[in-house]
Amino acid sequence: MSYPSSLALPLVRFDRGFLAGRARLVRETVIPYQWEALNDRLPGAERSGCVHNLQVAAGEKAGQFHGLFWQDSDLAKWIEAASYRLATHPDPALEATLDRLIVTIAKAQVADGYLNTYFQLVEPQNRWANLRDCHELYVAGHLIEAGVAHFGATGKRTLLDVVCRLADLIARTFGPGPDQLPGYCGHEEIELALVRLARATGVERYRDLALYFIEQRGRSPNYFEAEAARRAGDDGKLPWHMHHDGLATLQAARPVRELTEPVGHAVRMMYLLAAMIDLAGDRHDAPLAAQCRALWQAIVTRHLYLTGGVGTEPYGEKFCEPFDLPPDRAYAETCAAIGVMMCARRLLELELHGGYADVMERALYNNVLSGLALDGRTFFYVNPLEVVPAVAKRRYECHLVKTQRVPWFGCACCPPNVARLFASLGDYAYSQMPDGLAVHLYAEGEAGFQSGTGAVRLLVRTDYPWQGRVEFRIEPEWAAAEFTLHLRIPGWCRQPGLVLNGVAREPGAVDGYARISRIWRSGDRVVLDLPMPVERVRANTRVFAAAGQVALQRGPVVYCVEEADNGPQLSALGLPRDSQLTARPELDLLGGCVVLEGPAVRAATGGALYSTEPVPETPVQLRAVPYALWANRGEGEMRVWLRET
Amino acid sequence: MSYPSSLALPLVRFDRGFLAGRARLVRETVIPYQWEALNDRLPGAERSGCVHNLQVAAGEKAGQFHGLFWQDSDLAKWIEAASYRLATHPDPALEATLDRLIVTIAKAQVADGYLNTYFQLVEPQNRWANLRDCHELYVAGHLIEAGVAHFGATGKRTLLDVVCRLADLIARTFGPGPDQLPGYCGHEEIELALVRLARATGVERYRDLALYFIEQRGRSPNYFEAEAARRAGDDGKLPWHMHHDGLATLQAARPVRELTEPVGHAVRMMYLLAAMIDLAGDRHDAPLAAQCRALWQAIVTRHLYLTGGVGTEPYGEKFCEPFDLPPDRAYAETCAAIGVMMCARRLLELELHGGYADVMERALYNNVLSGLALDGRTFFYVNPLEVVPAVAKRRYECHLVKTQRVPWFGCACCPPNVARLFASLGDYAYSQMPDGLAVHLYAEGEAGFQSGTGAVRLLVRTDYPWQGRVEFRIEPEWAAAEFTLHLRIPGWCRQPGLVLNGVAREPGAVDGYARISRIWRSGDRVVLDLPMPVERVRANTRVFAAAGQVALQRGPVVYCVEEADNGPQLSALGLPRDSQLTARPELDLLGGCVVLEGPAVRAATGGALYSTEPVPETPVQLRAVPYALWANRGEGEMRVWLRET
Repeated sequence: MSYPSSLALPLVRFDRGFLAGRARLVRETVIPYQWEALNDRLPGAERSGCVHNLQVAAGEKAGQFHGLFWQDSDLAKWIEAASYRLATHPDPALEATLDRLIVTIAKAQVADGYLNTYFQLVEPQNRWANLRDCHELYVAGHLIEAGVAHFGATGKRTLLDVVCRLADLIARTFGPGPDQLPGYCGHEEIELALVRLARATGVERYRDLALYFIEQRGRSPNYFEAEAARRAGDDGKLPWHMHHDGLATLQAARPVRELTEPVGHAVRMMYLLAAMIDLAGDRHDAPLAAQCRALWQAIVTRHLYLTGGVGTEPYGEKFCEPFDLPPDRAYAETCAAIGVMMCARRLLELELHGGYADVMERALYNNVLSGLALDGRTFFYVNPLEVVPAVAKRRYECHLVKTQRVPWFGCACCPPNVARLFASLGDYAYSQMPDGLAVHLYAEGEAGFQSGTGAVRLLVRTDYPWQGRVEFRIEPEWAAAEFTLHLRIPGWCRQPGLVLNGVAREPGAVDGYARISRIWRSGDRVVLDLPMPVERVRANTRVFAAAGQVALQRGPVVYCVEEADNGPQLSALGLPRDSQLTARPELDLLGGCVVLEGPAVRAATGGALYSTEPVPETPVQLRAVPYALWANRGEGEMRVWLRET
Repeated sequence: MSYPSSLALPLVRFDRGFLAGRARLVRETVIPYQWEALNDRLPGAERSGCVHNLQVAAGEKAGQFHGLFWQDSDLAKWIEAASYRLATHPDPALEATLDRLIVTIAKAQVADGYLNTYFQLVEPQNRWANLRDCHELYVAGHLIEAGVAHFGATGKRTLLDVVCRLADLIARTFGPGPDQLPGYCGHEEIELALVRLARATGVERYRDLALYFIEQRGRSPNYFEAEAARRAGDDGKLPWHMHHDGLATLQAARPVRELTEPVGHAVRMMYLLAAMIDLAGDRHDAPLAAQCRALWQAIVTRHLYLTGGVGTEPYGEKFCEPFDLPPDRAYAETCAAIGVMMCARRLLELELHGGYADVMERALYNNVLSGLALDGRTFFYVNPLEVVPAVAKRRYECHLVKTQRVPWFGCACCPPNVARLFASLGDYAYSQMPDGLAVHLYAEGEAGFQSGTGAVRLLVRTDYPWQGRVEFRIEPEWAAAEFTLHLRIPGWCRQPGLVLNGVAREPGAVDGYARISRIWRSGDRVVLDLPMPVERVRANTRVFAAAGQVALQRGPVVYCVEEADNGPQLSALGLPRDSQLTARPELDLLGGCVVLEGPAVRAATGGALYSTEPVPETPVQLRAVPYALWANRGEGEMRVWLRET
């Protein structure tokens, strides 16, 4: 749905195992729970107001608007998630709920196509008057994505028609014409949404508009400056979150084509890059594709947390200096890591290269999954790599860090973003290639794809990411099918093994994918063996915050130590260079996972604040758990980077 | 002057050596330079407006007030510094400048005694209306200190009379009476100033008022809450700097007598504690003295930077959680470290204990001296222990960190505070004891004190802090004098040596002071030998920001590594446990100092952001310079804590 080469969502199934469990949790718990949140029926949670606002705008009830400018986008992302769920797991009750909601949405839409409950109910006179700050086109973008998803899942045009009318209004309003606004949104999203709408409807002008927004962004004279000058009461000061970076916070200080390093608000930067990759691919724009690759390389070689997160500056949720990756002040917003996945997945459309999938997998198993509690009812927005609760609660620069997941947020972008990500996980796992199938993510289940000689089912058995063995069985629609199976060999794997019908062969990965081209027959079996020793990861020495420290990783899973296992004062733990760590399945811990254990040391000085005495260290047994599962056992310290002794 | 047991300033001389050099710099460069700053005659510096405001208030010129509520206090501190300078180094021109300035001050004073140019010129209707935020009594306190200092130095009552009228107005205005305000200042200072005024004038009601302010502070019903409720237009919200702590930011959330841990704004906390110690001593208030000792212990065992600084939270310049001492976000304001010295010196009045002097010396040689450039023309307000310039300039939580000293500040509390500290350094070095003299700080020069059998001159020769040998010659006024010489044996010194007239004897320090009681004759000589090996200091394991790291110290001097000596990416440096570091005098470096040198390693990974490869380390020669002298050779990285390998 999302990507040209994705398999249709119903053709991908996750049956069993870790990802399947999370996807089921999202399907069965998170989506219904979030519907309650959006209807303000969660006791103790911050009020959403989303459905309420819509009903008021539709004239179905009286009341005041509640929330932020972009409140509608939470609901739009939920509709998108719910639609994906309908695609994979039909559910008449959910479908009816969506149908009723879409009737309300259509009633709320203004005759000219406008739809944004904040501006309709609070500032009708200020439509399109503050594109810099008010996220109007961002909200429209999420509605468009919802419309495309709903259409894809149900075949119904009800919401698609609504969002096409909205997109048509936007296309009439924005552009180079004398009666048009030469503007663009302070928060990118509309661009990638318009590309999706163009792909879904075949209407080229939506893609043209996306291109216009990107080409216009940051051009001189700057639209946001002109807009601010026009606004009555604007004192010329920039909002606080634009501290230091000014319009670069919004990727609008210079033309987009001149960007070489990620700048500004991390989610916006990733959403912008996603749209740029889409356009580079759809329009065969080689310079743009090269720029996208360069920006990606800048991100993953200078700005990426080990957990796959981006954004290190809480003030404005922004990219910061290269290699400035502090673990305690990591912003690493869940949405931004989802943006990393979105870009990686899109880059796999430009070229099948395992490096993209490696980062996508890193973000998924660590930063993104961290956003969701084991029970599916609480969420992280910010995902630090080190937390000392008393300090995180105390320091102003950590005031957005939560030490425990929370039921909802006043600005609740992340929870429904996690929901739509997991509800459409199939989009990320496979690519239909011209010559067969590429497998990017390994999870037990099934995928249906097309070969040149008919449909094929790929059956997968694995306990990934806890075990590295993945078995595939090929079931062609007909007796045989000729195609290439592109199996990703993860970058973290040093000695992959490949067995085809019982015969070992060299994986011979090119660009990170082992390729098996042959005529396949029913029952053909491939076994991929991806040994997962416990790895010690060290950061580039330019990452000053991780100097002398080591992180533990096994397969794609980054580990952390928690107070629950290791006691408080985790900074006092040291991991000797020669300590042998072992991986052990713990079926009853944190929903079932693999823990890492081994000998370590704990430093413990006397009472003096400073001393010239050597620091005595005593041997202790260290236990590390998957980072994504932290903070599921009450409040306590956590850290990813451990001092290496 | 400042402390009951201080020697009269003219009786203390610093002749030669490091401290004498800094004191001379302050006398000859800093004080004249600051007079230019206060007169807005420094090109490129932030405007002060201090003298201008005063002249406008005195009717000597027309104009608008410039600056902050508390702008007058910068001038008051400068008057205090200039007065101390007059005491030690008479200067008719400076004395005349002060006389003229005091005439203007007297003219500016309102008939009822009120004196505050901000409120006189900008908000005359709001006198005493916002004690929480507007520092009115704080400014009065600094004026009072200036008046006491000027009287002490010159014997003239010109400014003393002005501040007595001001203090009398305050005494009429504040108190428990039906027509009085039961309030106190949001920024402590008036309390210790009133004690000084009481001591200088013998007028007890000033001390009583200081006690009232302290006893009343934080009592319920809370004065600041009542005051805010009375203020028209107050929306009930607290200012941003009171984030998290509320009224505890101002040490006003609970009665002062209940404080057991330092809270809130660091300078305020230290100034409050200074007044509490004064009152505990003057009033023989044993419970208050015990509380002061307990607060001090809490500060120095849980909240003190290795450099003697306090305050780790830039938002509100505050104390933070115990052991939360991040080097890059150290606030460690120069004024707060001066506050540490003030408290330490006052505690030496309560009891002669070397622990207080150790911290006083640590603050002086490191955090306080860091506040002043080698050339005396630029200043640090914030004194971090680690700086990566690009990051410090980029991160919002570091936006108060300067990577280079600056000529002046819009809020310029620190520069004149450094000036008055150095101009009155003699107050900190010696105590007149009932039985003789205590020497707290070692510096070449002379001190005149009283023995029971006449006046005595103590002549000191030393190259402290670069060398640990200190020679004393005793010159009694008469042929002989009987007294005890209390010589501080610094806590950092493991093997002190003591030689009296050529005969070695056990120093036998009690409470950190070696005591020599005898009948002294002219020419008696004592040689104190304080060996200064290079020491490796480690922090308590609860200081998570320093885990696995080591700092270098020699004598009282804390060292740092700078980019100028060691190249960039200082976090990549590692100091092997067995590396032998040597101290070497560098006469031409940084005004002459001792540098530390020795073999170290530098880690350098390849280009990948994360890798499972071991990190290669190459041997390098490390050079460390005294922390206080950093940033005198252009902009670059600096760090105090080094990774120990």
